[in-house]
Amino acid sequence: MHQSFALKGDIIFSQTPQTLAIYPSHYAICQDGVCVGVFAQLPEQFADIPVMDYSGKLIIPGLTDLHAHAPQYAFRSLDMDLELLDWLNTQTFPQEARYADLDYARRAYSIFAEDLRRSATTRAALFGTLHVPATLVLMQLLEQSGLETLVGKVNMDRNSPDNLCETDAQASLEATRAWLAGCRDLKHCRPILTPRFLPSCTDALMEGLHGLQQETALPVQSHLSENQGEIAWVRELCPQSSGYGDAYDRFGMFGGERCPTIMAHCVWSDAEERARMKQNGVFIAHCPQSNVNLSSGVAPVRTYLDEGLNIGLGSDIAGGTHLSILRAMADAVQVSKLRWRLFDQSLSPITLPEAFWMGTRGGGAFFGKVGAFEAGFAFDAVVLDDSDLPSPLDLTPEERLTRIIYLSDDRAVVHKYVDGRKLF
Amino acid sequence: MHQSFALKGDIIFSQTPQTLAIYPSHYAICQDGVCVGVFAQLPEQFADIPVMDYSGKLIIPGLTDLHAHAPQYAFRSLDMDLELLDWLNTQTFPQEARYADLDYARRAYSIFAEDLRRSATTRAALFGTLHVPATLVLMQLLEQSGLETLVGKVNMDRNSPDNLCETDAQASLEATRAWLAGCRDLKHCRPILTPRFLPSCTDALMEGLHGLQQETALPVQSHLSENQGEIAWVRELCPQSSGYGDAYDRFGMFGGERCPTIMAHCVWSDAEERARMKQNGVFIAHCPQSNVNLSSGVAPVRTYLDEGLNIGLGSDIAGGTHLSILRAMADAVQVSKLRWRLFDQSLSPITLPEAFWMGTRGGGAFFGKVGAFEAGFAFDAVVLDDSDLPSPLDLTPEERLTRIIYLSDDRAVVHKYVDGRKLF
Repeated sequence: MHQSFALKGDIIFSQTPQTLAIYPSHYAICQDGVCVGVFAQLPEQFADIPVMDYSGKLIIPGLTDLHAHAPQYAFRSLDMDLELLDWLNTQTFPQEARYADLDYARRAYSIFAEDLRRSATTRAALFGTLHVPATLVLMQLLEQSGLETLVGKVNMDRNSPDNLCETDAQASLEATRAWLAGCRDLKHCRPILTPRFLPSCTDALMEGLHGLQQETALPVQSHLSENQGEIAWVRELCPQSSGYGDAYDRFGMFGGERCPTIMAHCVWSDAEERARMKQNGVFIAHCPQSNVNLSSGVAPVRTYLDEGLNIGLGSDIAGGTHLSILRAMADAVQVSKLRWRLFDQSLSPITLPEAFWMGTRGGGAFFGKVGAFEAGFAFDAVVLDDSDLPSPLDLTPEERLTRIIYLSDDRAVVHKYVDGRKLF
Repeated sequence: MHQSFALKGDIIFSQTPQTLAIYPSHYAICQDGVCVGVFAQLPEQFADIPVMDYSGKLIIPGLTDLHAHAPQYAFRSLDMDLELLDWLNTQTFPQEARYADLDYARRAYSIFAEDLRRSATTRAALFGTLHVPATLVLMQLLEQSGLETLVGKVNMDRNSPDNLCETDAQASLEATRAWLAGCRDLKHCRPILTPRFLPSCTDALMEGLHGLQQETALPVQSHLSENQGEIAWVRELCPQSSGYGDAYDRFGMFGGERCPTIMAHCVWSDAEERARMKQNGVFIAHCPQSNVNLSSGVAPVRTYLDEGLNIGLGSDIAGGTHLSILRAMADAVQVSKLRWRLFDQSLSPITLPEAFWMGTRGGGAFFGKVGAFEAGFAFDAVVLDDSDLPSPLDLTPEERLTRIIYLSDDRAVVHKYVDGRKLF
């Protein structure tokens, strides 16, 4: 027995990074959680399926957040006058240490999970903290939300404050195995291996995580080339490596067919690092707002798109203050303009369709066929009501989408489907 | 008979550009529209005045928007992939030409005036279009809103499309006099002379406006040094001037005691132009979001603050897409970080208190004693409810203000007072 239904409305998704497919007043059909396609009329074999009539509203694919720190949501926007390494020490690490307290973790993560559920995001790759019980609480809350998420218990056994540092590699790996045992029954929230970043992981820990990755085939996420001070530090810590990406690669934690990997930021990746990411299929999580707030810079997204690298968007809560990937799209366009104007006029700014592509198909691809209403894609859909943005103009669906990306907030998200399941 | 009342809540305002005055659970007293001060307890002579109890909510001064184009609100966020001069020709000018149609103007301006009324802004300096009837409609709507605003019928008699260009200087000046006659009975919405920018005003028009300014002592607003292409154009158009600012100054439309002037943008003002602005007391309207969207650059706000120039914030609708001056504060901090990182490390980023100062006292000073709860200041107050931003942390009033600046939208604005009048 197949379960089918259709959504009717003004449907928009990316065909390519440069082109939008726009279907006003069409039907998007879902069968067993998978998209059948978009049709002007219901085809005969689907003539009798239930139709949710969202006429006059926009329907877009669910958005993917490729990088965010769930525990940092509690202090987003505070202390943004610091650069990355200072901000980690004065704000981030003390705040993450609080998650040793499970009551606090539950209160904080409940707020995060509910806000993520109400947003336009349907898929996300998230960092927890090093704490196993708190990370499992986060995962249970996300499982209940209905979203499809990847969550990592963070590994960190050096260069971290005493109250947020694992004793050694062995202790970190044992905790990681306990965490994996604790979440193995979850269906929608799955684990992802998460060495925080090279400066906070000993060689022994990286080697142990590589072994665990080989054993489990779990995906991996970490940080790469965010800030020049950080890059110089990695060069000191890993003198045998030719660069930051190479240092991950030497530990076998940098993509490849059996090791799907997300690297957040890549603001300062050089040609060699880019070539390695391309060769290994590493996904870049572009986090424009965080890169501004922490004065990291602006990633050369035009280069990444031209070179055909895998790239999506990340909110990077709480380097970024906004959970919205719609906001991340507008931010991505805006920062690329400043990069062009102030830094390097050889790379043209990215366009809004390109930003939309990154926030849907670009990042969605890490989860499989995700981010478009094409046949065979996961049926992730967001219904947007722009009636609180009145206009005296007759707007096209594309113009309405543009306004929602620049102007709207979570109020615009009125219905959401993930793998065909209606969340609200 | 004096009319007095007090607002009770967590009161925050700027003391200096670097320091906030923070009074948790205090009373701000208003007498005849003017602030008496902030007190822990009601002083004896005010013991019996009505108190609006906003305990648990933040109370900040009303914000000032020093630069926005009311007619452009209708198409904000559309076509942002263009630079200034192209954007003017393909989007802005055709859209402004629509305001020849008074029905359209009424529909569009009603939306703008209502959104401005609901925002945290209490004072604004606004451009209309060249059309006298439409500009008067805008002014009547703003008068009804209760806000304190300055609105300019725009003057433009060259280098503009046929359907948005006045015949000649004489016609433009006659229309300006008709407009001034039409709005002379308004109390809260007052006129401001508004040559669009030098490229769109003939010498004869500038000379005529100077005469009118001398005669009426009206304030002046225009654009200055926004974009390098524009600056080069002004150099061609005004070969006798040493620079863009000097060109305005030669026409007597660039500040001075009898000619209060706002110049929007000043992204690329050189040392000579800065010195002239300082000498003449010109107010700079810093419009960070617009300067990003139109790829203009980032104004050297650190220099302006250090040199003691008059500076406030502008939304610059629709170069900027957001009407919120809270958003402009966060944008100002963010773009200053990218300017520092990518362009000029000699100018440190601005801080959030500095941005808050610009959005309150900095811009407010153009309207007199505005933007703080000090004795003798206009009683402009905004009551903010941050309960829709739940947090597991115990936040200080300053942290709550920070979150509202970065995260909130107009939902947070629950009450507003202008000159002691309650708008809602």
